[in-house]
Amino acid sequence: MRILIIGDIVGRPGRNALKEHLEELKNFYNVNLVIANGENAAGGNGITRKVADELFEMGISLLTTGNHVWDQKEILQFIDEEPRILRPANYLEGTPGRGSAVINLDGVKVGVLNLQGTTFMPCNRNPFFVAIEEVEKLKAETNIILVDFHAEATSEKIAMGYFLDGKVSCVFGTHTHVQTADEKILPNGTAYITDIGMTGPYESVLGIDKELIIKRFTSSVPLRFEVAKGPAQINGIVIEVDENTGKSLSIERINKICT
Amino acid sequence: MRILIIGDIVGRPGRNALKEHLEELKNFYNVNLVIANGENAAGGNGITRKVADELFEMGISLLTTGNHVWDQKEILQFIDEEPRILRPANYLEGTPGRGSAVINLDGVKVGVLNLQGTTFMPCNRNPFFVAIEEVEKLKAETNIILVDFHAEATSEKIAMGYFLDGKVSCVFGTHTHVQTADEKILPNGTAYITDIGMTGPYESVLGIDKELIIKRFTSSVPLRFEVAKGPAQINGIVIEVDENTGKSLSIERINKICT
Amino acid sequence: MRILIIGDIVGRPGRNALKEHLEELKNFYNVNLVIANGENAAGGNGITRKVADELFEMGISLLTTGNHVWDQKEILQFIDEEPRILRPANYLEGTPGRGSAVINLDGVKVGVLNLQGTTFMPCNRNPFFVAIEEVEKLKAETNIILVDFHAEATSEKIAMGYFLDGKVSCVFGTHTHVQTADEKILPNGTAYITDIGMTGPYESVLGIDKELIIKRFTSSVPLRFEVAKGPAQINGIVIEVDENTGKSLSIERINKICT
Amino acid sequence: MRILIIGDIVGRPGRNALKEHLEELKNFYNVNLVIANGENAAGGNGITRKVADELFEMGISLLTTGNHVWDQKEILQFIDEEPRILRPANYLEGTPGRGSAVINLDGVKVGVLNLQGTTFMPCNRNPFFVAIEEVEKLKAETNIILVDFHAEATSEKIAMGYFLDGKVSCVFGTHTHVQTADEKILPNGTAYITDIGMTGPYESVLGIDKELIIKRFTSSVPLRFEVAKGPAQINGIVIEVDENTGKSLSIERINKICT
Ligand SMILES: [Fe+2]
Ligand SMILES: [Fe+2]
Ligand SMILES: [Fe+2]
Ligand SMILES: [Fe+2]
Ligand SMILES: [Fe+2]
Ligand SMILES: [Fe+2]
Ligand SMILES: [Fe+2]
Ligand SMILES: [Fe+2]
Repeated sequence: MRILIIGDIVGRPGRNALKEHLEELKNFYNVNLVIANGENAAGGNGITRKVADELFEMGISLLTTGNHVWDQKEILQFIDEEPRILRPANYLEGTPGRGSAVINLDGVKVGVLNLQGTTFMPCNRNPFFVAIEEVEKLKAETNIILVDFHAEATSEKIAMGYFLDGKVSCVFGTHTHVQTADEKILPNGTAYITDIGMTGPYESVLGIDKELIIKRFTSSVPLRFEVAKGPAQINGIVIEVDENTGKSLSIERINKICT
Repeated sequence: MRILIIGDIVGRPGRNALKEHLEELKNFYNVNLVIANGENAAGGNGITRKVADELFEMGISLLTTGNHVWDQKEILQFIDEEPRILRPANYLEGTPGRGSAVINLDGVKVGVLNLQGTTFMPCNRNPFFVAIEEVEKLKAETNIILVDFHAEATSEKIAMGYFLDGKVSCVFGTHTHVQTADEKILPNGTAYITDIGMTGPYESVLGIDKELIIKRFTSSVPLRFEVAKGPAQINGIVIEVDENTGKSLSIERINKICT
Repeated sequence: MRILIIGDIVGRPGRNALKEHLEELKNFYNVNLVIANGENAAGGNGITRKVADELFEMGISLLTTGNHVWDQKEILQFIDEEPRILRPANYLEGTPGRGSAVINLDGVKVGVLNLQGTTFMPCNRNPFFVAIEEVEKLKAETNIILVDFHAEATSEKIAMGYFLDGKVSCVFGTHTHVQTADEKILPNGTAYITDIGMTGPYESVLGIDKELIIKRFTSSVPLRFEVAKGPAQINGIVIEVDENTGKSLSIERINKICT
Repeated sequence: MRILIIGDIVGRPGRNALKEHLEELKNFYNVNLVIANGENAAGGNGITRKVADELFEMGISLLTTGNHVWDQKEILQFIDEEPRILRPANYLEGTPGRGSAVINLDGVKVGVLNLQGTTFMPCNRNPFFVAIEEVEKLKAETNIILVDFHAEATSEKIAMGYFLDGKVSCVFGTHTHVQTADEKILPNGTAYITDIGMTGPYESVLGIDKELIIKRFTSSVPLRFEVAKGPAQINGIVIEVDENTGKSLSIERINKICT
């Protein structure tokens, strides 16, 4: 089966790009399932009920997130009742929401696990130890397992790839908003890429207005960020997974500039 | 003119890969100049006199570095007399060595500037302010200017790209050891890529033995890292620069797996 | 002369404690001058025009600040015209406001310098290099110089103390909100203390409601902080400075619980 | 009963100060038990078999540690067999050594728990969650429980104090090497202090030669640290604990300059 995974959707520009092009991408790559990272989908920060529904209606089956998951306060009102939105599984005990899910696709089950790194990020539970626990639980239901490792440091992300190699179908990174060119099938069959990139304004710094970010780096006075304007890009990957073994057969990067 | 820029060379595997393939790459891409980041060239940490000479003899004209520049203590004995090895220009006043250089290539001058980020890295002088100062100095000699921005955070790197767009020929990132897929010519003619990647062991975590790094992330006891074994990759970019304007005409990623 | 220096004033509880007890403290210690750190004076975050005036009216001659200085946006409207509020002098070039001031006390001049650390804090200009520059400027006017080093790491703070020993009258730390017991006169006559502490709610975590902070450390969901209720403490120091040499003769901690 | 707790012992100067003065301190304060933080006891970094034995022979019953615990490699050879040396209990699963111990003092049992913070420090298991688990285990044996919270941030340390208030006899901080002046008995009977300070060279930066640390903060080239010379200080606290309830009756700071 073929799965399309969309990188961090940033604000309305990211959502509009998908509204216009997702169907076409699904057809072109002939995909059976679409998931996306939605932590920046609402105005660049977090996700709301309305924005999530907009994305589900486009045919995205599940949204993973990361450090921006709580940016919109209303998420605390619905995340417990919404199994299609994940937050990192290695958040501390007692955190609302859930970190993994199983999608039932006409009888074929696909497990999705969301994890967050701890290097240059807040300290949560060790993502490697939690990965082992969660993968074991998902394995009881399916061999097809996708892992969104939302992390900053390349070392931590690649280590997770090798750590889970042969245990899951795909480990893909999110959070840096820059797509990496290191996609590969690891020795034991896991598709891997350090970061799948960002779906949002093309001429921007991670989706944010570039002049504001330049000001931030050249000033000691903080300022409000705003999602950039202009044409968008759609970043992501398509993987092909053997449904019987759960191993990946291919991984291909998508980097579409929408003009 | 065409310039080949090689990403962080890691240890003997990285050097050996270049010894075997650099000539072939230079010919294939028809390049006039080769520079490289050498901060990990000696056993994964720093650079020695012997290792530097080995790289210069291969036809690399200049080595940039980064946070690992001081790892081999002997560098302090020769960096002041070696204009072909740069350390980040925004290191504090009084730091040995220099942060920029002008290469004279049969009458064509190429300026090179090395900077280091401050996000998730030690605090040095503001790289944006220092960039302006240094670029102005280099501009007095040449329009062709290459900037190695050795930094961790994608936001800081992309911001530097836009900040220097139109002022230099190329801003390329190093340090994360993972090549990014966002190479482009920015609106005002500067070639940009967030990270040009790593030249060293292919099955590794940033060049280091992957089992050791996995242990590091799953244990509270530190351990010594060792450069990984096995086939190497060569990562880098080739840019084509208009010698008159200093603007870049193209940027192409190189990701060669040496088997 | 005797100078009373008040530690980070937190919100209304801190201001009220001073309103009630400052006069009594001034009389008891027979002080000629009072300065305070006011970065948390407005509701725990930043400072407003109104809050600053309230503090000036109590007899505080000057307010230093730190990382929270910009928390209340309105400060950008008056900091350039208000020489009695300092922000750290080592903020980047172009930052509004000023980092040092000279107070004229019936002919006796007292210089005050505000600096911020860079360890575990945002990267600004090197506070040691800026200290040298600023102290030189102030020395042209007076020998009596007070330095508020707003910093997190004990190593950076103590290093600054020894670095400026003999050049200024006093180096006192702020920011951790916990008074340290290491006050001393350094070998060359500079009064030193790592942190003068906090003026605000006594049963609290740095002035904030303790249950909220405990929740923060045991949860992955962020929450809004609120200034704690209940009795307040006044923290600070009194130093005695020789007006001719600028050297300090004594440093005494104040830790008053107001019930 | 009275317990003397000694702050981070730094190198030979710290050990020598104790050799000379510990007996006298024990008599003066009439203490029944001495424990100390020994993470810097061997040359400023870590602890060896020989150094540990030297400290045990002086009458120190147990050594807690912190982030420097692994600095001397030989500790891995004996920590599993040495119940008198603790490392933080919240290190990751599988870490050698143990994080808590029960000392039997002629029939009176004293539990000791070592924890490490996660703010501005490596990410380990959440110290608050681990504290609850460990305190419960120790409670099964005794009401008298001492907690060394080896941490950087004052907020995390004070939060732990209130978090464990009423559950343990004492929460004392270590790691910053600067004694704080906030010792108190919390509302529910737990003695608390943010940091008990350092036992080592008096004119130094955290025990290290001050010129070297100043150089470190004013240079981009790293350098080797060395323990400072000259007179030492002994820092610590004496608490008086009600043996029946485990509540503390008093906490007194010790700050002895040995000349
Ligand atoms: Fe994101
Ligand atoms: Fe993120
Ligand atoms: Fe590197
Ligand atoms: Fe680096
Ligand atoms: Fe403060
Ligand atoms: Fe502060
Ligand atoms: Fe220590
Ligand atoms: Fe420590």
